[in-house]
Amino acid sequence: LASKTKHRVLILGGGFGGVFTAKHLRQPAGSDIHVELISRNNFLVFQPLLPEVAGGGIHPADAVSPLRLFLPGVSVRVGEVQEIDFAAKTVHVTARRGREITAVPYDHLVIALGEVVDLSRTPGLADRALVMKDVVDAFQIRNHVLGCMEEADSTPDPRRKRRLLTFVVVGGGFTGVETLGEMQELIRKSLRHYPSVRPDEVRIILVQHGARILPELPEHLAAYATDTLRRRGVEIMLKTGVKAVTSAGIETDSGLTLDAETIIAAIGNAPSPLMRSLPVPLDHGRIVVDRCLRVQGLDDVWALGDNAHIPLGDPNDDKTGYAPPLAQFAFREAKVLAGNVVAHLHGRPLTPFEYRSVGTMASLGGRSGVADILGVRITGFLAWAAWRLLYLSLLPGISTRIRVAVDWSLDLVISRSIVEIRPARFTSRYIRLLSGDVVVEPGFEPAGLYVVVSGCFELTSPATAADGAPARTRRLGPGDCFGMSFEGNAPPEPERVHACEDSTAYFVERGDLKRLALVTALLEKRGQTSVRTDPESA
Amino acid sequence: LASKTKHRVLILGGGFGGVFTAKHLRQPAGSDIHVELISRNNFLVFQPLLPEVAGGGIHPADAVSPLRLFLPGVSVRVGEVQEIDFAAKTVHVTARRGREITAVPYDHLVIALGEVVDLSRTPGLADRALVMKDVVDAFQIRNHVLGCMEEADSTPDPRRKRRLLTFVVVGGGFTGVETLGEMQELIRKSLRHYPSVRPDEVRIILVQHGARILPELPEHLAAYATDTLRRRGVEIMLKTGVKAVTSAGIETDSGLTLDAETIIAAIGNAPSPLMRSLPVPLDHGRIVVDRCLRVQGLDDVWALGDNAHIPLGDPNDDKTGYAPPLAQFAFREAKVLAGNVVAHLHGRPLTPFEYRSVGTMASLGGRSGVADILGVRITGFLAWAAWRLLYLSLLPGISTRIRVAVDWSLDLVISRSIVEIRPARFTSRYIRLLSGDVVVEPGFEPAGLYVVVSGCFELTSPATAADGAPARTRRLGPGDCFGMSFEGNAPPEPERVHACEDSTAYFVERGDLKRLALVTALLEKRGQTSVRTDPESA
Repeated sequence: LASKTKHRVLILGGGFGGVFTAKHLRQPAGSDIHVELISRNNFLVFQPLLPEVAGGGIHPADAVSPLRLFLPGVSVRVGEVQEIDFAAKTVHVTARRGREITAVPYDHLVIALGEVVDLSRTPGLADRALVMKDVVDAFQIRNHVLGCMEEADSTPDPRRKRRLLTFVVVGGGFTGVETLGEMQELIRKSLRHYPSVRPDEVRIILVQHGARILPELPEHLAAYATDTLRRRGVEIMLKTGVKAVTSAGIETDSGLTLDAETIIAAIGNAPSPLMRSLPVPLDHGRIVVDRCLRVQGLDDVWALGDNAHIPLGDPNDDKTGYAPPLAQFAFREAKVLAGNVVAHLHGRPLTPFEYRSVGTMASLGGRSGVADILGVRITGFLAWAAWRLLYLSLLPGISTRIRVAVDWSLDLVISRSIVEIRPARFTSRYIRLLSGDVVVEPGFEPAGLYVVVSGCFELTSPATAADGAPARTRRLGPGDCFGMSFEGNAPPEPERVHACEDSTAYFVERGDLKRLALVTALLEKRGQTSVRTDPESA
Repeated sequence: LASKTKHRVLILGGGFGGVFTAKHLRQPAGSDIHVELISRNNFLVFQPLLPEVAGGGIHPADAVSPLRLFLPGVSVRVGEVQEIDFAAKTVHVTARRGREITAVPYDHLVIALGEVVDLSRTPGLADRALVMKDVVDAFQIRNHVLGCMEEADSTPDPRRKRRLLTFVVVGGGFTGVETLGEMQELIRKSLRHYPSVRPDEVRIILVQHGARILPELPEHLAAYATDTLRRRGVEIMLKTGVKAVTSAGIETDSGLTLDAETIIAAIGNAPSPLMRSLPVPLDHGRIVVDRCLRVQGLDDVWALGDNAHIPLGDPNDDKTGYAPPLAQFAFREAKVLAGNVVAHLHGRPLTPFEYRSVGTMASLGGRSGVADILGVRITGFLAWAAWRLLYLSLLPGISTRIRVAVDWSLDLVISRSIVEIRPARFTSRYIRLLSGDVVVEPGFEPAGLYVVVSGCFELTSPATAADGAPARTRRLGPGDCFGMSFEGNAPPEPERVHACEDSTAYFVERGDLKRLALVTALLEKRGQTSVRTDPESA
């Protein structure tokens, strides 16, 4: 723990802004500052490498830098920021495991909580879409894509196969384009292992709201990227928005329906909801700071990165721009902010933040890319190589650099792994069934409870030799259940259930059912809640 | 698809037995056999390397071999075996994603479904324990251990710290001992990154029911292993059973209570429940086969590996032993079985299975091991090196071998990664709180709904300046809820909840709550089930 004479600087957020502020504060300040960093993860996610995790070229643990290795001398606390109390100069942090809350005091506070993904503006999208925020998300996309290839190779149903081989990326910015490029690379490299899947059966679609992709790059480069991707067979739908995601698929505002098993949402970046609870001025959900990165009206609170609204000139001038949410900006903001905290503590004048982008680049997968570096525009292999070199050099920590270099080298030498590592368990979810699909077979315990959402299912109890009863058939509609009972038991008699038209059911996985039953039982002890299951009442 | 003249051999199970049967069948038979393999995963888990995944020395995707790479020419289908219909010569398989059932026909069937983990004999164990069955389990143990280190480094509570730093392995066989050894290695190597954790605060305990550990090995080697582990500070409790796992910890039958955040169960191997549904003779849940690995009474069904009861001599002789559930046996059984299927198809006589173990070995972590190879007993570094060389050579597939060799080399050169990759989401679970722990703080949305299981919590609604109401306090007991409402909303007024004695609550995670509400809403459409929340009724 810090001695009492030390200034406690508390940094919230383990992204680029927070981590590099900690890095800079640790060095020049010598011993009169105690730096503590609070992060949701014990690592810094290196966002530019996430698409390669999604493409299977890099191991998930290699695309990130362990904070404790990169920040020796900084106290690292893994937890979620629950509440910030400016008056008491205290931050309340929840530990993930035990969920106990700890109050962490500060002298100076740096807010670098970044952004969250909010897909709520498009109905149904959040339920179905995979996102690309964290390294676990990226790894899940890799496994999901491989899972679709597996099932497409085995399914006897051509409609289901089409659906499994349709991959849609919503959002044509950096993340969307790079994820799409790497996903295509993964599919291309693994196709030879799936003999029943023909290359022309795979559909990869990019849905972009704007008039072009990669709005962050000059038009000329975006056009090159569009051409490259289209030549590889990617369907790029420009000026197209997503109206809703339903059981039939993605409905675009141009009236199309795309029936895809894989939907990746590379849109919806939004400020952390915690911002709204703070008594500070916000602009579009971002904390308003002055040019020295200090929060308006507070002497000891600073903010940077994607959760800060940072003027690049005089904020009273209408023409003043604001810092974009890019890692290179956060990186520089961190340096200025760390210097300003030290200057403030020592009574020296603060330095305003000034920075102009050195350029931007995007990888397109398949050893191609586009780059705009200090106005020089490069395309193709050179841009891709520059991309790799630059990011390898920017990766924090020697051991992380070695790991990524090894991953890249192995990917050149041996075939890319198609091992589908599943998440720990399959959760409850909507499932869509085509007419004729069999969901429950007699003689074996069903995997969970099914609740019909739309369409129609037919339940058949087979004829029993014992009591001479004939086969009986029952139709099930929305709200009806089949499979396991609510209590987690197998159906009382063997039954076979199939969809008699294209239908949607909500599948409650066995484990979820068990937890649900447990909660119900706990609540019933006090008569607070009752769950009755009475299949005959209407 | 196979042409009609081909014999369809269908193999159930992607473990050693199934995969090597497929490998052998593919080669000598030329073109008159069509081999299809059904596996839960698209890879073969190389069980001996799982402890190294748990220790973080090997990437999870590297400890497994992709089936499609290893078995070119074999049809691989990922799915769960739902039902076997011997009369119709058909197996029903469920696809994981869409849950549709496919009927797969066969001419010859090979059952190699292995074993499952069944912890139900010890009350409470299944709810809390981590297991070591699959590669995801092993990876989860690694992340769990690192998570405990993180939280132990930050918690201000000495009791919680003790609990977080207590690691218990139940079961002193191969899996238990090797997992313990690698876990200790991970903790030892990462300790320097956790400045608040002293080495002597870490407790690693092995609970073994039998009179010694490693019953599979000669007594002399087990004694060496025991000494080695004890010298490293591992507490080995012999002749100790687990009575129950409660919120207070693990209760042993010797009357001890071990309060541990980490419980790894390396016990409970049991035959797959599918076996019981089959109309075949079983012995201890295993399918009875003759010496040629044919299932009794069936001409076209074979079984091998851990789900088969395989006589090593005349089954009518009381002294006849049976094949133990070891990979080296499955490996040889596969060769004999494949040969017998081909012989049977060509009308040639069958070969009985005969094999004697060439020896066994166990790694103890920290570059030490024990080995008994053809009666020669080696200990220490040599045994460990032999272990690594042997398993590297046994690993199926060149690219998997390269990957593992690279992982091992990197582990010598750069520090082991302490990156804690979390599972995609935290699920609902029991949480235990110590007296005084704060669970809900006013001003921020709680993470879910809490149901009190035991103990007592105090809820405080702070005094409000607006209506002049004073602070109110309410006691909560078993069955009471706090935090989010059942509908997923924040509490109507700010509240603070803390445990007023050591207590247990069931935490229903936000996502689970949402799914639960969704199921309830679907069911209510038809009035089948109602969930009422009425806090005042008793």
